[in-house]
Amino acid sequence: MTVNGSRRGPLYTGGSVFDQERAERAVRELLLACGENPDRDGLQDTPQRVARAYLEMFAGLYTDPDEVLDRTFDECHDELVLVTDIPMYSTCEHHLVPFHGTAHVGYIPNEQGKVTGLSKIARLVDLYAKRPQVQERLTSQIADALVRKLSPRGVIVVVEAEHLCMAMRGVRKPGARTTTSAVRGIFRSSATSRSEALALINGRTK
Amino acid sequence: MTVNGSRRGPLYTGGSVFDQERAERAVRELLLACGENPDRDGLQDTPQRVARAYLEMFAGLYTDPDEVLDRTFDECHDELVLVTDIPMYSTCEHHLVPFHGTAHVGYIPNEQGKVTGLSKIARLVDLYAKRPQVQERLTSQIADALVRKLSPRGVIVVVEAEHLCMAMRGVRKPGARTTTSAVRGIFRSSATSRSEALALINGRTK
Ligand SMILES: Nc1nc2c([nH]c(=O)n2[C@@H]2O[C@H](COP(=O)(O)OP(=O)(O)OP(=O)(O)O)[C@@H](O)[C@H]2O)c(=O)[nH]1
Ligand SMILES: Nc1nc2c([nH]c(=O)n2[C@@H]2O[C@H](COP(=O)(O)OP(=O)(O)OP(=O)(O)O)[C@@H](O)[C@H]2O)c(=O)[nH]1
Repeated sequence: MTVNGSRRGPLYTGGSVFDQERAERAVRELLLACGENPDRDGLQDTPQRVARAYLEMFAGLYTDPDEVLDRTFDECHDELVLVTDIPMYSTCEHHLVPFHGTAHVGYIPNEQGKVTGLSKIARLVDLYAKRPQVQERLTSQIADALVRKLSPRGVIVVVEAEHLCMAMRGVRKPGARTTTSAVRGIFRSSATSRSEALALINGRTK
Repeated sequence: MTVNGSRRGPLYTGGSVFDQERAERAVRELLLACGENPDRDGLQDTPQRVARAYLEMFAGLYTDPDEVLDRTFDECHDELVLVTDIPMYSTCEHHLVPFHGTAHVGYIPNEQGKVTGLSKIARLVDLYAKRPQVQERLTSQIADALVRKLSPRGVIVVVEAEHLCMAMRGVRKPGARTTTSAVRGIFRSSATSRSEALALINGRTK
């Protein structure tokens, strides 16, 4: 499906349901498969805790992230709004290990000056991050949600993250960082707008 | 059990066995319990990958970490040997989420000057970290292994880490750091030796 020339993230179907007991049984099984004793002191409550942790870490499967943008307001502001350094924690869908870093989100409101609360942008990042994810899809999904809900003149999203699956296992490269971006509307068509926004964002990237 | 006045970590029984197929089934179940579709593109290989990742992240359950200290040599060196800033990645046994940071390990060899390879100290940290852990136990286990294998005059271990279970979920405090220490032998009995070693280590903590 195409929205303003961009591909939508393919995943949100809405209404996923979390089954706490089934998750607890699965975690207990996983511990047994690893040769651990799930009844030892220290692990006794782990299945229940891990299940609750997944419910929280995958919150964006059970709530439609776009709903946080339902409340918009019209301001006479049609220039760049940029929220940078939004802490972002997500879960790699390949290894179920966290990847985390910061997200930077900018948009230029449309002629009506349709804007949203600044905290809503951080909530949007948060909910899309709270799913089994890959960083590229996370980045596009945030951009596309803003396109859908604010009909802005342009959107730019940059996500920088460290993937623990690359640091603690596998290739074991602590400190390697991945940067992804998604541009829509005027940020896609105008190299000048894009490089101005990127300059503002880059001043903040570590 | 008491070794040189210290409590041993209670856990290593040796010979845990990893069951790859059982782990894969458990991860598939966990995804289903979360309301995900484990057959969708992107998740198809996840059970297999996550199982392999656990085998690697829990390597210290399948190998006796102390074995890395089997090779020692006698050097005419009986003063402090300190290895700092050893990158450390472990898994919180309460939430099965990583905690990571650095370990600093120092010891004073005994009268025979019994020492071990420097890389072996990093391997020891690595293997004890590669278990379902809590930070305090990890710290003591490293110290106690050195006591057992090198019979040194003293051992000091400091671990500083960020727990993702406190950053990405629950209390959500990114950046909070936890420091734990374990001192044995002369570092326990002599406040002067301890504070000298801590001063050398603290110069390096971030
Ligand atoms: N483009 C992209 N790749 C990712 C993300 N997360 C993630 O694990 N990957 C990559 O997905 C690939 C999975 O590869 P694989 O099927 O060979 O699994 P593996 O565990 O043996 O790979 P590895 O040991 O190299 O990490 C890895 O290259 C991993 O780095 C992401 O967010 N974006
Ligand atoms: N001392 C210590 N505490 C730890 C470690 N890892 C770890 O999760 N904890 C703590 O273990 C406790 C588990 O508490 P809980 O049974 O109420 O589980 P919970 O998930 O509801 O707790 P939370 O939401 O406060 O994290 C938490 O306070 C957590 O911070 C560790 O390495 N050392």
